[in-house]
Amino acid sequence: MIEMEQALAAIYQRTEPRQAERLPLSQAVGRVLAEDILSDIDSPPYDKALIDGYAVLATDLRGGRGNFMVIDEVRAGDIPCEPLQSGMATRVMAGASVPRGADTVVPADRARMDDADGLPLVHLEEPQVRPGQHILPRGASLHRGQTVLAQGHRLAAIEIGILAEVGRLEVLVHPQPRLSVLAVGDQLVSAADYPGVGQSRNSTGPMLGALIQAAGGQAVDRGIALDTEPELTRQINQGFQEDALILCGSVTSDATDRVPRVLRDLGVERVFQGVRVSPGRTFWLGALGHARGRRFVFGVPDNPVSALVCFHLFVRPAITALAGYPVDEPARIQAQLADEYRQTGEHPSYHPVRLENQRGKTVVRLLDARGMPDLKTLASASGLAVFPAGQQDFAPGQTVSVMCF
Amino acid sequence: MIEMEQALAAIYQRTEPRQAERLPLSQAVGRVLAEDILSDIDSPPYDKALIDGYAVLATDLRGGRGNFMVIDEVRAGDIPCEPLQSGMATRVMAGASVPRGADTVVPADRARMDDADGLPLVHLEEPQVRPGQHILPRGASLHRGQTVLAQGHRLAAIEIGILAEVGRLEVLVHPQPRLSVLAVGDQLVSAADYPGVGQSRNSTGPMLGALIQAAGGQAVDRGIALDTEPELTRQINQGFQEDALILCGSVTSDATDRVPRVLRDLGVERVFQGVRVSPGRTFWLGALGHARGRRFVFGVPDNPVSALVCFHLFVRPAITALAGYPVDEPARIQAQLADEYRQTGEHPSYHPVRLENQRGKTVVRLLDARGMPDLKTLASASGLAVFPAGQQDFAPGQTVSVMCF
Repeated sequence: MIEMEQALAAIYQRTEPRQAERLPLSQAVGRVLAEDILSDIDSPPYDKALIDGYAVLATDLRGGRGNFMVIDEVRAGDIPCEPLQSGMATRVMAGASVPRGADTVVPADRARMDDADGLPLVHLEEPQVRPGQHILPRGASLHRGQTVLAQGHRLAAIEIGILAEVGRLEVLVHPQPRLSVLAVGDQLVSAADYPGVGQSRNSTGPMLGALIQAAGGQAVDRGIALDTEPELTRQINQGFQEDALILCGSVTSDATDRVPRVLRDLGVERVFQGVRVSPGRTFWLGALGHARGRRFVFGVPDNPVSALVCFHLFVRPAITALAGYPVDEPARIQAQLADEYRQTGEHPSYHPVRLENQRGKTVVRLLDARGMPDLKTLASASGLAVFPAGQQDFAPGQTVSVMCF
Repeated sequence: MIEMEQALAAIYQRTEPRQAERLPLSQAVGRVLAEDILSDIDSPPYDKALIDGYAVLATDLRGGRGNFMVIDEVRAGDIPCEPLQSGMATRVMAGASVPRGADTVVPADRARMDDADGLPLVHLEEPQVRPGQHILPRGASLHRGQTVLAQGHRLAAIEIGILAEVGRLEVLVHPQPRLSVLAVGDQLVSAADYPGVGQSRNSTGPMLGALIQAAGGQAVDRGIALDTEPELTRQINQGFQEDALILCGSVTSDATDRVPRVLRDLGVERVFQGVRVSPGRTFWLGALGHARGRRFVFGVPDNPVSALVCFHLFVRPAITALAGYPVDEPARIQAQLADEYRQTGEHPSYHPVRLENQRGKTVVRLLDARGMPDLKTLASASGLAVFPAGQQDFAPGQTVSVMCF
């Protein structure tokens, strides 16, 4: 048995992002950049009017007012015809290019048209005029050659806009990690079968597949382990087509020792077995050098709570590392317990909880059905409360740390 | 112009979930159920031992102790051979079926084997024995015929496990809404082109596409509107292949009035134009009766902040309604401003903000680059702060409401 920190270090030490692939922007959202992105343009590409109004020279507004001859009208997309000189104004629309010579935009609602002798004149009043007002100068947002997004950055929606802005149709990103799930246990039948006496349907396998997808991976459900060694060997070998294989079930207490023997024969190195954390005392990690690169085997207990906790503590970090995310701690919040809890374990415990709103305050409700919440109860969980090792009675109102899903 | 609540009501009134489709479990995560799910089994299907130990009759432990003859050993998946009688014990493993007659499991660490004359005997000491301890009774989690998940429930990972447990391989869910995006603006060029003077690349369109995906929809990028009416008509008609079309850009101030004319000719009814909210004063909604069902047109401003805000205020609710989610308000938190803010508008304002941690407290940092944050600044936004209509100076430390992304 090792400490949780050692287990995570062993996982991170062995996981690295997969070889980058090139994707069109429309498929890249959620992925992690495998290259630095430089801007090929200044943005805005011109001095840009931020509002509808009149572009003028600030010094022409003596005492905050002045009369101007309107020489041009520029909309977004238009090219201003001529540079502006003192005493002149150009009508500009929001988003338009401000003509050379102008340094100020006076809002349209401060203008009064005053057409004299057929010449378009405008009277502007702007008591507190500032040079540069309502103008976003060329390159204020991006300048050519600048790194706008760095390798390792996760691409959310706004980043997709940035990539389009700097002319990228495709981008180099890390592929989604692929994980397969194989359920192990003589009592298991598939969802397609009706369980006989002593049997139960494989529900933890499909749940783990969905957790993999929600964590940004691709899941391959390899069903339930078959009971002869040649068939089991074939199933596990198939699992090595993916980056990692989750064996879910009581692998180590398997009466016939079939799974451990097959793994040994396939050359899987046991990195660690058992972590000082509850649940998770039976979680183990195996590794295999493989023609297509390193492969992992995670041994996850079969009961839904233990599987969920082990997934969040150990498998999720492996998926994010394979996906190219920088190592980071999951979000934790501090909140007050709604229930009492007796911590008796010699290991830190993770307990499924629901965050509830109680008179405007967030409280932590323990989920429990006779000491072992079932899937139906678990469905309302919003995170895992962490209780440190040792004998301790927690009272309602005491503050605990919650790792949020 | 209408109020924001009226705009949302108009959207919800016209959006309903699309016709349900049947999907395998592995593709159903994130979808919304279009049927009630009943259990076809009791779960657990038998009285289940929660720990390794000995199944006995509680009344046999007089004074908290007793000697028992061990008649059987049952593992998960095994069927107990015979019912238990007084004075007998069955060795059970965690997950195993507790034999008929037993009502209690005594943990293995409270047992001492005591084989006399070749007969397997066990001495058990459990001072505070309770009938039913360490046993999850048959049907405690699910009982046959019970509704385990109701129509309208969103399927997260744990729900996928529940569906497998009740024997579902496929499930009836609402399809993902499909939205197309067409950028409108004479100044726009595609990311593939280098922008000339007065031009800029279409970045808001791809950003909206990624926002649609992140909100659970499917996005179809239809590029930039072409400048003749027949071509524009063809592009907009193509957009009606999807459930909704987002026209992004200064449609209404279009000098040539081309887009409004094409929409009118196509029979698009203008539901509302302009909402009393900032930004969003130019947001509009159109509707069209169509051979494939009702279609929507959203008119979204082209600048990234306005587009982002309008998306979150109006388009996202439409996507969730089309996806079958029950109407619900986005999560809002209350937190203190880190900066001062002068609210001068006659409408409520939504301002992009970043939530920051300041000495263990969450504070609200306004994102601003000269009154109009660019995409690069926006990328760090975690939500929108809401400032009510009217003249008001907000000081640092004042509490504001933040709609979180």
